[in-house]
Amino acid sequence: MNTFGSLFRVTTFGESHGPAMGAVIDGCPAGVPLTTAQVQQALDRRRPGQSAVTTARAEADQVELLSGVYEDKTLGTPIAAVVRNQDQRSQDYDALKKEDRPGHADRVWRARFQHRDPRGGGRTSGRETLCRVIGGAVADALLRREVPALRVVAWVSQVGPLVAPLPASGLTRAQVDAHVTRCPDAPMAAHMEQRILDAKRDGDSLGGAIMVRVEGVPVGLGEPVFGKLKSRLADGFSSVGAVTGVVWGPADLEARLQLSGKAFHAPNADGTPSEAYGGIQGGLANGAPLLARVLFKPPATLSDHAKAGRHDPCILPRAVPVIEAMASMALADLWLALLASPHRP
Amino acid sequence: MNTFGSLFRVTTFGESHGPAMGAVIDGCPAGVPLTTAQVQQALDRRRPGQSAVTTARAEADQVELLSGVYEDKTLGTPIAAVVRNQDQRSQDYDALKKEDRPGHADRVWRARFQHRDPRGGGRTSGRETLCRVIGGAVADALLRREVPALRVVAWVSQVGPLVAPLPASGLTRAQVDAHVTRCPDAPMAAHMEQRILDAKRDGDSLGGAIMVRVEGVPVGLGEPVFGKLKSRLADGFSSVGAVTGVVWGPADLEARLQLSGKAFHAPNADGTPSEAYGGIQGGLANGAPLLARVLFKPPATLSDHAKAGRHDPCILPRAVPVIEAMASMALADLWLALLASPHRP
Amino acid sequence: MNTFGSLFRVTTFGESHGPAMGAVIDGCPAGVPLTTAQVQQALDRRRPGQSAVTTARAEADQVELLSGVYEDKTLGTPIAAVVRNQDQRSQDYDALKKEDRPGHADRVWRARFQHRDPRGGGRTSGRETLCRVIGGAVADALLRREVPALRVVAWVSQVGPLVAPLPASGLTRAQVDAHVTRCPDAPMAAHMEQRILDAKRDGDSLGGAIMVRVEGVPVGLGEPVFGKLKSRLADGFSSVGAVTGVVWGPADLEARLQLSGKAFHAPNADGTPSEAYGGIQGGLANGAPLLARVLFKPPATLSDHAKAGRHDPCILPRAVPVIEAMASMALADLWLALLASPHRP
Amino acid sequence: MNTFGSLFRVTTFGESHGPAMGAVIDGCPAGVPLTTAQVQQALDRRRPGQSAVTTARAEADQVELLSGVYEDKTLGTPIAAVVRNQDQRSQDYDALKKEDRPGHADRVWRARFQHRDPRGGGRTSGRETLCRVIGGAVADALLRREVPALRVVAWVSQVGPLVAPLPASGLTRAQVDAHVTRCPDAPMAAHMEQRILDAKRDGDSLGGAIMVRVEGVPVGLGEPVFGKLKSRLADGFSSVGAVTGVVWGPADLEARLQLSGKAFHAPNADGTPSEAYGGIQGGLANGAPLLARVLFKPPATLSDHAKAGRHDPCILPRAVPVIEAMASMALADLWLALLASPHRP
Repeated sequence: MNTFGSLFRVTTFGESHGPAMGAVIDGCPAGVPLTTAQVQQALDRRRPGQSAVTTARAEADQVELLSGVYEDKTLGTPIAAVVRNQDQRSQDYDALKKEDRPGHADRVWRARFQHRDPRGGGRTSGRETLCRVIGGAVADALLRREVPALRVVAWVSQVGPLVAPLPASGLTRAQVDAHVTRCPDAPMAAHMEQRILDAKRDGDSLGGAIMVRVEGVPVGLGEPVFGKLKSRLADGFSSVGAVTGVVWGPADLEARLQLSGKAFHAPNADGTPSEAYGGIQGGLANGAPLLARVLFKPPATLSDHAKAGRHDPCILPRAVPVIEAMASMALADLWLALLASPHRP
Repeated sequence: MNTFGSLFRVTTFGESHGPAMGAVIDGCPAGVPLTTAQVQQALDRRRPGQSAVTTARAEADQVELLSGVYEDKTLGTPIAAVVRNQDQRSQDYDALKKEDRPGHADRVWRARFQHRDPRGGGRTSGRETLCRVIGGAVADALLRREVPALRVVAWVSQVGPLVAPLPASGLTRAQVDAHVTRCPDAPMAAHMEQRILDAKRDGDSLGGAIMVRVEGVPVGLGEPVFGKLKSRLADGFSSVGAVTGVVWGPADLEARLQLSGKAFHAPNADGTPSEAYGGIQGGLANGAPLLARVLFKPPATLSDHAKAGRHDPCILPRAVPVIEAMASMALADLWLALLASPHRP
Repeated sequence: MNTFGSLFRVTTFGESHGPAMGAVIDGCPAGVPLTTAQVQQALDRRRPGQSAVTTARAEADQVELLSGVYEDKTLGTPIAAVVRNQDQRSQDYDALKKEDRPGHADRVWRARFQHRDPRGGGRTSGRETLCRVIGGAVADALLRREVPALRVVAWVSQVGPLVAPLPASGLTRAQVDAHVTRCPDAPMAAHMEQRILDAKRDGDSLGGAIMVRVEGVPVGLGEPVFGKLKSRLADGFSSVGAVTGVVWGPADLEARLQLSGKAFHAPNADGTPSEAYGGIQGGLANGAPLLARVLFKPPATLSDHAKAGRHDPCILPRAVPVIEAMASMALADLWLALLASPHRP
Repeated sequence: MNTFGSLFRVTTFGESHGPAMGAVIDGCPAGVPLTTAQVQQALDRRRPGQSAVTTARAEADQVELLSGVYEDKTLGTPIAAVVRNQDQRSQDYDALKKEDRPGHADRVWRARFQHRDPRGGGRTSGRETLCRVIGGAVADALLRREVPALRVVAWVSQVGPLVAPLPASGLTRAQVDAHVTRCPDAPMAAHMEQRILDAKRDGDSLGGAIMVRVEGVPVGLGEPVFGKLKSRLADGFSSVGAVTGVVWGPADLEARLQLSGKAFHAPNADGTPSEAYGGIQGGLANGAPLLARVLFKPPATLSDHAKAGRHDPCILPRAVPVIEAMASMALADLWLALLASPHRP
């Protein structure tokens, strides 16, 4: 299954070292303003080679829209977008052709498909996530028209043992992008950057956490039983390779779970629902900002493989737009589901 | 959306205080041994009123199979199962008819559907989970035939601040059920039981965590991009009302995320893949036991509503078979997907 | 697969001689007026034993709504409806337990499922269509609220060699039901009735055609590529057991296909699009009435089996509400899809 | 909805005068032999400009596989294929930019999407069918491995009033392709060719029928209630723009419907099930060849628009591979569904 969503459906394709990666977005209504530049800008945010803390692999990642857009508006037909793979260097991987890379999924992939694509990770490569960024860019365009107040912003909240404080509401993607680590807390961002450079030097790697906050979610968004808002988002976030957990609410949620119910459920001082809910009640958005923490394993490729593949010592900064994209796609899908379930006075 | 799964599809229906709850299971192949007694036995494990630590609401919860089974074997047609609601006492809820219950989803539900069912939680009630247990019982029957070595076992690993040690592999459901708290560690089980009784006495409530382990998962189970094993399970677990997080791997996973990649990925002493993976690599089962921790909020209904609805001070013991059911359904679905993607030598 | 529809989803269950038949309708929005009496009335229109031209099998076919409706309005949750099988007489079928009935699907069913339910047709019985009538009744209730001008009316247009003329627009279901054959042309209805009674006497059977017309379809309904209006309806009609063809447009469509394009496409005298289109252009409704002809095989059960199962000599009169139900379900589903694809000025 | 199939899923994209057309095929298992040449060969069979009886529009229609295939075998990942639009001449259509073309879907499309793509038919163009041919080529590759005896062959059986006799079993695609009209009966093929040239000269057009026969279908293929073999095929065939009817069984099926049941159901002389069934009983394949007749309207574009768009006077010859493709995709999908519903001895 390579499709995410029921009504706003994003199908991704492409192997990391094949001819191209891409996505087909079906279900986006007609008349939504969308340009190639918008999609390109989204891709540029996850592009490798942007700073010393990311992989040296420099891919131009130029997107082409093959269908579904005419005179900068969506046609209501499938939007197909393609990115050619340019810096393939599959020869780097020749040495690995026969052996399974430790810490990678090579062995289990071969058990499933009776073969594996030796050219990098093939379909399991992190490069597949660029397709989700394409889907997220279209979802953002749709949400901008449909729910203008909605804002999806993610940031790096933890790198290894370093944990940043919760930023104030109203945080923008530009404020996050101002730091190469995508941690919006300047002092902690500096610590994280140094820690990543140290790991890179040591041929080591680092995991951590990304937090995502969605402001302006319409009350009632989500489905009540299956397809709950938290289920769809957990599904989407968990589909990103290195993600190893999704926890709703503030960073100290686990600590709060030690509290009794009276303390846990106490409303905020201003009478709004407790932030411990992470913005979700009964599977539906409760009107408060959604807040989730997405846990990432450190990447598996270590120094002795450095010459035979080029990887990020810490993927979190580049994963920020991917997490945002998954959130936007899930929200766009649930928004269309809400439209298909109308009230009549 | 009230359906879970793509090939093994479980559709649930029913409001907690309407005439009946039920499920239709479509996609179960023909010839699988299945009796009403098997399904009943599964339901009995989540039935309320079994001990002092659960709600006093005593429902007989007798299941009837309406279709899909003939002479104790599945027909390959949809299996419909119904449980009548007997102890409805909706008069208890009359007082609540006009006001939204704090901590409940009443307000957001009304925003979504422009009304709410005043008879208890309606569709958002925890009672809906009995339908999942029905689906899980059928999934278990299918998995028993198809993957006999597979074992899904969940247990209560945390209640409030009390955390139990990881039980040895080979743990059975019977060993878990031997304790009213469903914590298989006897000393900790006693502590938890007392803590829950204290909360009940105080009109308070407790959250915590359930761990679920799946032994015998076929290597390669899962889909590589969307529909990953961890996505489907996170989706399923998150669809349970009080669940507020899903984390893969051992209970100290968050602590391990502070480690560098070299330490995190170090194989076990016996050369098998690190248990930090939780049994999943590249989205597919890696052959080691799956291990996930599912976080639960404390329930919302507090003492001043005690007379107007009868609820568990701690839902974790009764949620154990529900989490197992979600795991079994997701695994059955992915198993059928694997069959539809055959290798030929 | 026992589900019809993507957004308005009807899942049917039940074997003809098992405990019960039923349907779960998911995706119907909240607040739609719906009573048990409405559903019962729809079922009564297909009930056996109503006249000499149908089977003698007398089933009360009392429906019970188990969920999804409260105070005569839909809740937005799944609507489960059940009909108990009362007149099972499975002993009638004991003789047939081991032999395959000629003309029936017994042999192919056994090839597929490695067994067959000997109690009548099991899941392939025409009795399964009562579940579709339930789904159609809910779809009608939804369409009545959403698209009040829409009218779905079917009638028997052919029995064996007897072909009725096209009735005028504005035909109602009541006018159709006024004839036991459900042919609204009185003289031809009388001929058909006699022909069916003759076939019954001879232990023979008759096929023919049902026409269905939908007035008031919103222009643009349908999907442009897959899920075209004509595809969904052809899919739905073809899912009825005895249906062996679906042809769009007037009864002389095949003759018109011999014409050249200029003649075929000539607009009507009043400038509206040619009725040869059957109301569909480019896969979408063109605003004119939809008109389709659904071809039916004669039923297979012949005289030597008369005592071992009780069947209709001609199923067309009782199939009329089933064809209407399939149309209503498809239209309700496509209507919700239209809502999920909004224009914004 | 631009996806066909549940397990073998083909998503098509592209507007006729946009940058490219294409398809993404998801669900094809790994290890299936597949080359670009195979797909190209399939496309060449529907390419315009091959003879005087088709459109003069000469498109090279070179396909490129972007993903899913490695060393001439499928990877089990999505197969993306793209065909660039080269001969766009959208200036031809400039004159039409503001007016709706009579007989086309322009008006209803605009009602649906509040705009239409003036560059030819956009998404409703017959050119979209090349994407289905891509999907059919992959389906054929899969079926060749999985069900080697299966053969899907379609041919032109009727052009205007000219009707060809039923060809003998064992007919091959090569035998059909030997005639520019794709009618395998040489004398009738010559008549049809002349008739089409006459229509072309007169600025007129012709409809008719294509028959499709599938030999070697596994007994039991199909789903019993919804997703019946005849439903899926009717759905697929009806999704082709000009199709206006699908009838199962031999060409004289309508005449046979006038017979009584005893005559209709009489087995063939050799005791095999009556060919009147068209190879389908109870929704499942009965082991005899599938036989369906697909009715086509004459195309709408007439002489006065000849200079403003280049179209086929009779699309049937070029529609033959499209109908085969829809059949192959439906069969591949149902085949995978059969694998997901296994018997165990």
